[in-house]
Amino acid sequence: MNNFGRNFRISIFGESHGPKIGLVVDGTPSGIPLSGEDFASDLSRRRSGKPGTTPRVEGDLPEIVSGVYNGYTTGAPICILFSNDNTRSADYSELADKPRPGHADFVSMLKRGGYVDPRGGGHHSGRITLTLVTAGVIAKKMLGNISIEAKLIRVGGKESWNDLLEKTRAEGDSLGGIVECTARNMPVGLGEPFFDSLESLLSHAIFSIPGIRGIEFGDGFAASAMKGSEHNDPIIDSKGKTSKNGAGGINGGISNGNDLLFRVAVKPTSSISKSQKTFNFATCKVEDLEIAGRHDTCFALRVPVVVEAATAIVLADLIL
Amino acid sequence: MNNFGRNFRISIFGESHGPKIGLVVDGTPSGIPLSGEDFASDLSRRRSGKPGTTPRVEGDLPEIVSGVYNGYTTGAPICILFSNDNTRSADYSELADKPRPGHADFVSMLKRGGYVDPRGGGHHSGRITLTLVTAGVIAKKMLGNISIEAKLIRVGGKESWNDLLEKTRAEGDSLGGIVECTARNMPVGLGEPFFDSLESLLSHAIFSIPGIRGIEFGDGFAASAMKGSEHNDPIIDSKGKTSKNGAGGINGGISNGNDLLFRVAVKPTSSISKSQKTFNFATCKVEDLEIAGRHDTCFALRVPVVVEAATAIVLADLIL
Amino acid sequence: MNNFGRNFRISIFGESHGPKIGLVVDGTPSGIPLSGEDFASDLSRRRSGKPGTTPRVEGDLPEIVSGVYNGYTTGAPICILFSNDNTRSADYSELADKPRPGHADFVSMLKRGGYVDPRGGGHHSGRITLTLVTAGVIAKKMLGNISIEAKLIRVGGKESWNDLLEKTRAEGDSLGGIVECTARNMPVGLGEPFFDSLESLLSHAIFSIPGIRGIEFGDGFAASAMKGSEHNDPIIDSKGKTSKNGAGGINGGISNGNDLLFRVAVKPTSSISKSQKTFNFATCKVEDLEIAGRHDTCFALRVPVVVEAATAIVLADLIL
Amino acid sequence: MNNFGRNFRISIFGESHGPKIGLVVDGTPSGIPLSGEDFASDLSRRRSGKPGTTPRVEGDLPEIVSGVYNGYTTGAPICILFSNDNTRSADYSELADKPRPGHADFVSMLKRGGYVDPRGGGHHSGRITLTLVTAGVIAKKMLGNISIEAKLIRVGGKESWNDLLEKTRAEGDSLGGIVECTARNMPVGLGEPFFDSLESLLSHAIFSIPGIRGIEFGDGFAASAMKGSEHNDPIIDSKGKTSKNGAGGINGGISNGNDLLFRVAVKPTSSISKSQKTFNFATCKVEDLEIAGRHDTCFALRVPVVVEAATAIVLADLIL
Repeated sequence: MNNFGRNFRISIFGESHGPKIGLVVDGTPSGIPLSGEDFASDLSRRRSGKPGTTPRVEGDLPEIVSGVYNGYTTGAPICILFSNDNTRSADYSELADKPRPGHADFVSMLKRGGYVDPRGGGHHSGRITLTLVTAGVIAKKMLGNISIEAKLIRVGGKESWNDLLEKTRAEGDSLGGIVECTARNMPVGLGEPFFDSLESLLSHAIFSIPGIRGIEFGDGFAASAMKGSEHNDPIIDSKGKTSKNGAGGINGGISNGNDLLFRVAVKPTSSISKSQKTFNFATCKVEDLEIAGRHDTCFALRVPVVVEAATAIVLADLIL
Repeated sequence: MNNFGRNFRISIFGESHGPKIGLVVDGTPSGIPLSGEDFASDLSRRRSGKPGTTPRVEGDLPEIVSGVYNGYTTGAPICILFSNDNTRSADYSELADKPRPGHADFVSMLKRGGYVDPRGGGHHSGRITLTLVTAGVIAKKMLGNISIEAKLIRVGGKESWNDLLEKTRAEGDSLGGIVECTARNMPVGLGEPFFDSLESLLSHAIFSIPGIRGIEFGDGFAASAMKGSEHNDPIIDSKGKTSKNGAGGINGGISNGNDLLFRVAVKPTSSISKSQKTFNFATCKVEDLEIAGRHDTCFALRVPVVVEAATAIVLADLIL
Repeated sequence: MNNFGRNFRISIFGESHGPKIGLVVDGTPSGIPLSGEDFASDLSRRRSGKPGTTPRVEGDLPEIVSGVYNGYTTGAPICILFSNDNTRSADYSELADKPRPGHADFVSMLKRGGYVDPRGGGHHSGRITLTLVTAGVIAKKMLGNISIEAKLIRVGGKESWNDLLEKTRAEGDSLGGIVECTARNMPVGLGEPFFDSLESLLSHAIFSIPGIRGIEFGDGFAASAMKGSEHNDPIIDSKGKTSKNGAGGINGGISNGNDLLFRVAVKPTSSISKSQKTFNFATCKVEDLEIAGRHDTCFALRVPVVVEAATAIVLADLIL
Repeated sequence: MNNFGRNFRISIFGESHGPKIGLVVDGTPSGIPLSGEDFASDLSRRRSGKPGTTPRVEGDLPEIVSGVYNGYTTGAPICILFSNDNTRSADYSELADKPRPGHADFVSMLKRGGYVDPRGGGHHSGRITLTLVTAGVIAKKMLGNISIEAKLIRVGGKESWNDLLEKTRAEGDSLGGIVECTARNMPVGLGEPFFDSLESLLSHAIFSIPGIRGIEFGDGFAASAMKGSEHNDPIIDSKGKTSKNGAGGINGGISNGNDLLFRVAVKPTSSISKSQKTFNFATCKVEDLEIAGRHDTCFALRVPVVVEAATAIVLADLIL
């Protein structure tokens, strides 16, 4: 379903090439200043147009249609809309019979009995993360001193990736990456075991972002090869500060006051112009497929602000 | 909170050293045969007593107190209870001032204002996974042809670990591991984008298990260093079969009919008898701590059946 | 919160005088034909303009912005928007200090710390029922043979009310009424005891409609003065048909296959031009209040289609 | 489903003649004193044994098995169990073919495909309200100054009912009644429009109690025959006090600080020894039925404390 959160609850809707996409945010306290300008910075970070991202550039101007009066939230649900202007639906017409590897084309078609909007991935499009970023801007306003920073630390397995990116783009291929997220000034006590552990809620939100392949907290997968005496974080003061952060700031599913730290693996963009194989349902044969259209060489470049947003949404829900 | 699931919903309760732990399962269809013996095999796999696991051995006899009549489920909520018999609470009395690194002692104490059950980790204990395994047995009965198998593939970073385990136990230290889970005969269509993607629900459930540090699907973190042409799974027949499984059986948050495949990183057991540092809240100094009591050298040994259970619970909820 | 339903879930938003009001419907199956014309009939029944209703007439043209492609639902969330065109916000400017009796002015002001949209009741406005009626149109399409009919059976306590309505309007006063709702061709088995009894879910939805004072099923309050031998419904055939319907078609919280039958008490419109008393927070005195603006003499006249919609939403959620 | 509440969440389980019935309460803050004695008074009010109630008397001793340590809640889920001792299951053996009018026998049998526990109504039994009363005792501890009082104001339509009760019992028939509930010292602001209006949540909980036929707030059904100038409650001071309480203490779905006031219609007990008609599924004929066993002449006598509990559960959920 397209709802998330218990006390700070978001509902999202829209398709890549439909008339509008948007979201409803419920549970925001009244009296929070909110205007269209608040969204400009994060929406800009998500937007395409930089090297390695798709040439499809949208204006992404948020239209606040409810829940805000005279510049302040009223506590009523906030609906924010975006128009989809820069669409070229003709690009997608020939894909009906040849599902793109790595995309939801095949599963959607089966799950929905053929009733899908194929244009640009429809509701599965990465464009829908625009709504997450928008909700994240509101969520960040609930977080007091907590600051969240996500950044790309690897592309194609490398820390320095400019040449690789250009070379891969020229080949018509794509790259993945790793995003690391840190939340500072965390309070002790966020997270509700058993099933609402902080890791459970964060991973739930993060894996809603299309194209995520893994998440790890603190030492992460490396912890599985460590001894307890290496991985344990010694507590060194009365506020619970630890001398290292192998746990990623969480014990027993609850924030421990140290920095929240996790990493997210982002797959390479599925749409590539380089030739690949897929099954043609019209001819019933495996055939070559070359995907036209405008695509990111590495959509991981645009993911950090989305990861920040998902994190903020989870923390806001726990704080409210 | 201690609830999980929408249509197949479980509620769990209990503390490591309380009189009883148990669970309530709601949403099970009527007419499913169910008796105490059904649980024996999976509970045995979770139980301790094998090399590398704690010498605390419990009988773990399930008492079904509701929802079953004449050997069949009635559709009413099923409550199953377990007694905690083999407890030695004295072991934990001295830990009140010295929170154990890696445990929830410190965060619980702060979050609960001092009102916690410190014995054996209380409600945070790994013993609570007994309830997950129990729910998993019921969930597996809802899955038709789907078969789930989780196994330990690494301990302390190695594929062959018997000597390492014994050596580490002798040192009073502990080890982590990696569990790999495969679900076969998956239908197409499980998972509901956006927020109920199959990865979101599975990771939510998996991170409820104490001591998990990471999860990755298909190629996982390695996908972040691959090109799209390497990572994409070509579709090769009309049922959506792919020639490889880099996506772990999921596209766009929805199962694609290939095997569901993911790996889970388990941290080394936090309780070690080897000396480590922690803050003493009585003396306000960092001091040495040696943890007595009976503990697993590597609790990852007992995790596979818990991972299977969490997976079954998620799949049952989606199928119902 | 502004969400309702588990498997057929609606989220609503908007204020009486904001730019747009609307709703998001999640969980609709794919392949249902849906277009703007489907809403015309029910929206018309709700609309004002008839004797006894407010002269504020809105066009109420639904704009479907997501979830529908080529005239069929896709299974993605459906967002439908309405513009608020015919607003005269100046009417409400003087009410900030003098909360209107029977309205949410006072409680909203306190609950929201002063940050409210006072124009036309803001998010509390009866205009928001427009979104319920819209969701009801979609819900009715999920109901197969079930037909729902709600009608006004009393106004001001009378079965024939035209003269009373005109007389009351002339006095600047208002009237309430009773709406009776019947759902025919009900299947056996809708409703999930304990907490999701059919009466629980229906009353939850019905009391979301502003201005409802009571609900009763079958014999209702009269049952409290009957004997068991009078109130019990004898079963007379193998399909569970009963010779009378004192239970309103529900036993043990579950539909029994007979007609679902309930009545709803609607209060008289709170906004009256006749002088009444209220507290003036500026002068700290009880003062006279005469409410200008355009109001229904009896908004119960417009409630039947809203009751039908709430009923359809509950039944659709149970059926899906 | 058998869950209720968002932040104060209860799960209930058990059958009338099963080994145990019980509940799990999640979301209780830590540090609340709680022991078995706390439940004695309310459980005693619900218990049978008084004139007009069933001779089946249970000890109803609560066994707290989790969530409480050293006499205080820990914030972990609280499970409380009751044993069913005084059962005479033989009484119900002959009802399999002849569903009792007014009971869930027929609908359960169909909904569950024959897999039901027929003894004493199984999970549909009024005995399950024992769990509500238990949860209510915990909920009342969260309410600060708010006091809730429910009382029976009518039996069989009369304010003085002792003779009627004895006469009806002798005839083998049964009676219904009306329960009035008042909550005093209410704060302003409880209830969350749109769908979590205070009336919505209260009616949802109240209709979970078996045998309820109606609910009305303040003037209730009488409001439908009043004029706005009669029904509106004039505000007379700066705290929102009103000179009358036609709204039952709620405006716009939100508590207004005046007493919360509502009435509940309770049907006559369905089980009567007097002969009535029902369909015999073995003979396929309508036949006479005389119900043996031990039953309340008027179970409404035992409902007030259950109504209080349901009210407390809703208010606690809103306050937490």
